[in-house]
Amino acid sequence: MQVNIQRLMADIEEYAEYGKNDLGGITRPSFSPADYEVRERFIKEIEDMGLEVTVDGAANIWGRLKGTGKKQGSLVIGSHLDSVPNGGKYDGPLGVLMAKEIIKTLIENNVTLDHDIEIVSFTAEESNDFNLSTFGSRSFVGRLTAEMLENESDSTGTSLNAELMKAGGGLNLFPLMKEMWKEKRAFIELHIEQGQRLESADIAVAVIDKVVGTYRSNVRVIGQSNHSGTTMMEHRQDALTAASEMILAVERQCKEYNSGVVGTVGKLNVSPNAANIIPGQVDFVFEVRGETEGKIQQTIDAVQQVWSEIAQRRRVEVEQQTFLDQKPVLLDEEIVHLLQNTAKQMKEPFMTLPSMAVHDAAHMAKITKSAMVFVKSIDGKSHCPEEYSLPEDIEKAGNLILQGIINIDRKLSQKPLVYQGNQENSSS
Amino acid sequence: MQVNIQRLMADIEEYAEYGKNDLGGITRPSFSPADYEVRERFIKEIEDMGLEVTVDGAANIWGRLKGTGKKQGSLVIGSHLDSVPNGGKYDGPLGVLMAKEIIKTLIENNVTLDHDIEIVSFTAEESNDFNLSTFGSRSFVGRLTAEMLENESDSTGTSLNAELMKAGGGLNLFPLMKEMWKEKRAFIELHIEQGQRLESADIAVAVIDKVVGTYRSNVRVIGQSNHSGTTMMEHRQDALTAASEMILAVERQCKEYNSGVVGTVGKLNVSPNAANIIPGQVDFVFEVRGETEGKIQQTIDAVQQVWSEIAQRRRVEVEQQTFLDQKPVLLDEEIVHLLQNTAKQMKEPFMTLPSMAVHDAAHMAKITKSAMVFVKSIDGKSHCPEEYSLPEDIEKAGNLILQGIINIDRKLSQKPLVYQGNQENSSS
Repeated sequence: MQVNIQRLMADIEEYAEYGKNDLGGITRPSFSPADYEVRERFIKEIEDMGLEVTVDGAANIWGRLKGTGKKQGSLVIGSHLDSVPNGGKYDGPLGVLMAKEIIKTLIENNVTLDHDIEIVSFTAEESNDFNLSTFGSRSFVGRLTAEMLENESDSTGTSLNAELMKAGGGLNLFPLMKEMWKEKRAFIELHIEQGQRLESADIAVAVIDKVVGTYRSNVRVIGQSNHSGTTMMEHRQDALTAASEMILAVERQCKEYNSGVVGTVGKLNVSPNAANIIPGQVDFVFEVRGETEGKIQQTIDAVQQVWSEIAQRRRVEVEQQTFLDQKPVLLDEEIVHLLQNTAKQMKEPFMTLPSMAVHDAAHMAKITKSAMVFVKSIDGKSHCPEEYSLPEDIEKAGNLILQGIINIDRKLSQKPLVYQGNQENSSS
Repeated sequence: MQVNIQRLMADIEEYAEYGKNDLGGITRPSFSPADYEVRERFIKEIEDMGLEVTVDGAANIWGRLKGTGKKQGSLVIGSHLDSVPNGGKYDGPLGVLMAKEIIKTLIENNVTLDHDIEIVSFTAEESNDFNLSTFGSRSFVGRLTAEMLENESDSTGTSLNAELMKAGGGLNLFPLMKEMWKEKRAFIELHIEQGQRLESADIAVAVIDKVVGTYRSNVRVIGQSNHSGTTMMEHRQDALTAASEMILAVERQCKEYNSGVVGTVGKLNVSPNAANIIPGQVDFVFEVRGETEGKIQQTIDAVQQVWSEIAQRRRVEVEQQTFLDQKPVLLDEEIVHLLQNTAKQMKEPFMTLPSMAVHDAAHMAKITKSAMVFVKSIDGKSHCPEEYSLPEDIEKAGNLILQGIINIDRKLSQKPLVYQGNQENSSS
């Protein structure tokens, strides 16, 4: 039994028509007209497949195919159908449309699982005009509550609740989502890697066993503004040359670890920012992502030690304020092993990797046994029209999940009725 | 014969009342209400001293004290009375009020020079709402013409010509300024150093023999925007880490020269400038100031060589577009020597320094024999309320110029009727 890759690729192309722009990119944030069109199409398609459709409070779309009833609850597969502005065809839709393809394949082959199988399409995984990313999964698992969201509105003044109701949800339905938790026995999300680790290794798929933690701080470097002509090099307290050294220290420190830690300064502002004035102040955001809290902390500590030396030598002050400290999330060991063993049985080469970005699966891990599969990205591109993965790789990923679901259905331990796998965790 | 330092310092304090703000700074750009008040006071004061006052097309204020008539033309001393926003008491007014003090001292001591002696206060040496710095001197020497200025207006829509007429000038009077050139036999400007070379050497005054050239280019570093989590360190083409190395290369290169070259990156913008996106593009302004064209070019060449290596190694593109290439200005050798010899006669320790910033004297050098005297700045501060010079140092500078003018009056060669000392030179 195999997924039908031609059918899936045609489906991806058809969905890519919704919100397509002149640049060949896709602009389909949640609650945009294109998103409403896609929701309607998607719901109709899965209803036509015979699935029982539910839209929850967060306007997440669930479609259920009944199993034999021998085992309680459902195995869930899915991702999200919304996109960033001028994004690509794969980030999000691949995981949802593959879920549809897998269920279609099971139906066509008259395979009925012991558990129910469910497809889910989460609302607003990407940030949109409401400025809330992984909105649907965070709401579902209770990290966003109706109380927290009741005053949210977009830049035009439309309330979040109005959009949710238009999409079939609503804040009044939020309390019901918690009732759905115990039904969910497992969650698997297929996503493009968005990096180049698989491509570098020439391997099609990865089983994801954890989601990295993210640390961010606002850093302020205070030097002395002065005339760029009259202030000799040795008399300067240039906040920008100091910041330059600090940025290179971040890069150097993260390169010293072979894997599992990345550090970035992506946002930086110079003050007063004039050609003839030595910068008196530089503000930047320092980000570290890492597989373990230890690795993240080790990086921050090492960087800060170098920064103090720079600050002292250059006679500048450095202030730092942490504003995000999201711990790494361990995905479910049993599901990870079942997926790894499935790949081995299929003789499909795979890597086991951490996810360097947060996905809906990182939140679903709070309430059910969750894992992810990544498929190789070409040139690591994502969130742009050039985002691409090869059909042959996508096919391998699809078949891995198809067989994986069958193995999980057979072998999943029946212990937890409400999952306690992960601690509470702040959101990104 | 000595200047009266108490009287001068009191005068500086009185002028500092015009445009004083709550922060203790002075905001008195040309054509502001405070500037008009200062103009009125200044004209009245020099008229009361018996000077013959002329306001030229650029609203520069000239006051003439007749000499014996044995020698043709006038020796001019002066600077400017306008300030930057929230500036100090000295940048500008020191040179004008010292000129007034020197002429007052000559009058009180019944000293009549063979040349006429003139005071000048130039309009808008600092940039203002019309965005034209060294406006008065550039206009006077013909670098700004009525044709170039006829459509200039400020942010409120007021035309430059309207302000000039209100201040007693006007574009229609511009052609007459050229007629005044041959009358001017020498120009000396006293200014605060705005740097720390004199303070470091513990010397009160400097004779300025040249004004550095200034080179500026727009530099664009093009890397690849990418996700800050999913893009491993080794797969990045980070425009900001590349720019950081480039900025440090500028600093290192300029530090290798002991003096005479300074290099700055004062303005820098990151794109897309988001915490979770690796910078795809960085734009910055690269500035080099140097005493000679050779030193400037050598610095640019050396920096560019390092930049190419960085670009290649980091797989980024670097584009550079020069938008300012102002050559160094040699001040008048004869005046410089006369001032140096005066200091020696007075046993006043002095340095001979290049000016690292453009002043009105750099433009006046086009039409007459010009030089400058700098007085020690405390902590190198300028363009801020903390701008300060010690009265004892100011007194030394004043007496140097007083004796210098007397020596120049006696010894100045009578050759040039129209000065050809400097080539045409772009403005800053």
